[in-house]
Amino acid sequence: MFKKLVVLFSFAFMNACGADNVTNEQWRALDINNTVLLTLPHGKVVIELAPQFSPKHVEQFSALLKESFYDGTFFYRVLDGFVAQAGPKDGSDKDKSVSLLAMEGQFLTDKHWSFTRVQNNDLFAKNTGFKDGFALANDNSETAWLTHCPGTLAMARNNEENSASSHFYFVIGQAPRYLDKIMTIFGRVVYGMEHIQAIKRTSVVEGEYAVDSRKHTPIISMSLMADVPVNERIIIEVENTESTVFAQRLIKRRARDNEFFYKKPPPVLDVCQVPIKSRLIKAESK
Amino acid sequence: MFKKLVVLFSFAFMNACGADNVTNEQWRALDINNTVLLTLPHGKVVIELAPQFSPKHVEQFSALLKESFYDGTFFYRVLDGFVAQAGPKDGSDKDKSVSLLAMEGQFLTDKHWSFTRVQNNDLFAKNTGFKDGFALANDNSETAWLTHCPGTLAMARNNEENSASSHFYFVIGQAPRYLDKIMTIFGRVVYGMEHIQAIKRTSVVEGEYAVDSRKHTPIISMSLMADVPVNERIIIEVENTESTVFAQRLIKRRARDNEFFYKKPPPVLDVCQVPIKSRLIKAESK
Repeated sequence: MFKKLVVLFSFAFMNACGADNVTNEQWRALDINNTVLLTLPHGKVVIELAPQFSPKHVEQFSALLKESFYDGTFFYRVLDGFVAQAGPKDGSDKDKSVSLLAMEGQFLTDKHWSFTRVQNNDLFAKNTGFKDGFALANDNSETAWLTHCPGTLAMARNNEENSASSHFYFVIGQAPRYLDKIMTIFGRVVYGMEHIQAIKRTSVVEGEYAVDSRKHTPIISMSLMADVPVNERIIIEVENTESTVFAQRLIKRRARDNEFFYKKPPPVLDVCQVPIKSRLIKAESK
Repeated sequence: MFKKLVVLFSFAFMNACGADNVTNEQWRALDINNTVLLTLPHGKVVIELAPQFSPKHVEQFSALLKESFYDGTFFYRVLDGFVAQAGPKDGSDKDKSVSLLAMEGQFLTDKHWSFTRVQNNDLFAKNTGFKDGFALANDNSETAWLTHCPGTLAMARNNEENSASSHFYFVIGQAPRYLDKIMTIFGRVVYGMEHIQAIKRTSVVEGEYAVDSRKHTPIISMSLMADVPVNERIIIEVENTESTVFAQRLIKRRARDNEFFYKKPPPVLDVCQVPIKSRLIKAESK
């Protein structure tokens, strides 16, 4: 057993160290042109977008933010343990004004592409890991995909593959990994996830009254951070998942080498159960 | 691929149908002596206890409820995506008054024991499934254990194995399955999980001010439902995980046989990502 652990840890460590883009910097600054400030009635949320993985979705979403498209819309489909979904009124002119997007549920990789490996052979993929702070997976060397961990931001769609436009959702429960590859993830919450968790649920159980739509949680505003007045910006740095510090943290987390673990759990990691740290560089000025 | 699916589905179906305790009843009433009403400032939560799996923990917890032990205590350790933990002030007379509990992280099973199987070979166990509404797992025929899915209620402890007493936590994020077997799960939320998710977080990220302890979420009251005045009781029924209806639902969920899935995901199920339904029989009288 001990031997097996050593092999596993060495593998994880070497792999991370072997990647092209390894750095000693534990923290990474976010690009304000690629960061979103979501203002809810009960708190503010910061989201990092993923143009490197889902370029067309980020491009269209960013253009909508520049028009203040989402300001005054509602989280109209919020299922506890699953997703909080928002967008314009279904079938409205605003809704229909937005172009359909081609699915970007996977992206191509080549043999030079690398990522920080976390685990092999989970239920849904041969390999899981992180790249640029995003949890992802692959089965071979040709494609990879972002995974539906809690806090991911993805575009909703109709039944057809290429039917997403402006409606989006945050994952608020146990990772619905069965949606991987057939939905486009294009961002993740890096600050204020507790406010996403506090969004008013819209679904009820049998025997309950329906939720009055006037109680749905509104989006006060949603903008690119670059378009927010400087004193209202929230500046966040996130843990650099390509850093040697992070690689060491994965090793420690897998080994559970502290006294609390009087018996060691299996030396495995669920990629959606590895929190990526954020730190606050500048809070909103009051 | 199709053949493999058929085999998997048949297996799941036969297994559920072959169990001793299969029933046609989709719903199961909760025993009011085994159900907890937790009143928070922002909502009410109903919890089912698990004396069949963790008898000593349920016995001690129920005795504490009868003393109104938790009324006026606080959720003092709340980490987004992980746990919401409550209990008396550390080291207080009240805290020290409670007996230590022997770990009940696993329970013995014999060859007649059966459960509704969900999946084999997830990251943490050979088999996962449900019994009496609780998600559980085993590796062999001799022991099994409840799994740390979102909404589970478990007892906190110090570093030593048998050091739990009265402090408890709810899982509020991606299942921390590495805690399976080394913590005692003794209940699960069956109603009002959104209110558990809205408990004030107590941890901050680097750069933030600490949370003032006066802002911690209090427990207004926490009682066995049997001890709640009749008109204030909330009566819930839960999906019967030993029913043929539930077995069919698992089959459908694994197959994802509706039009939304233009491409089928892998025919696997994460036991913590299968919601068990509840229905409201009687709301609190206003």
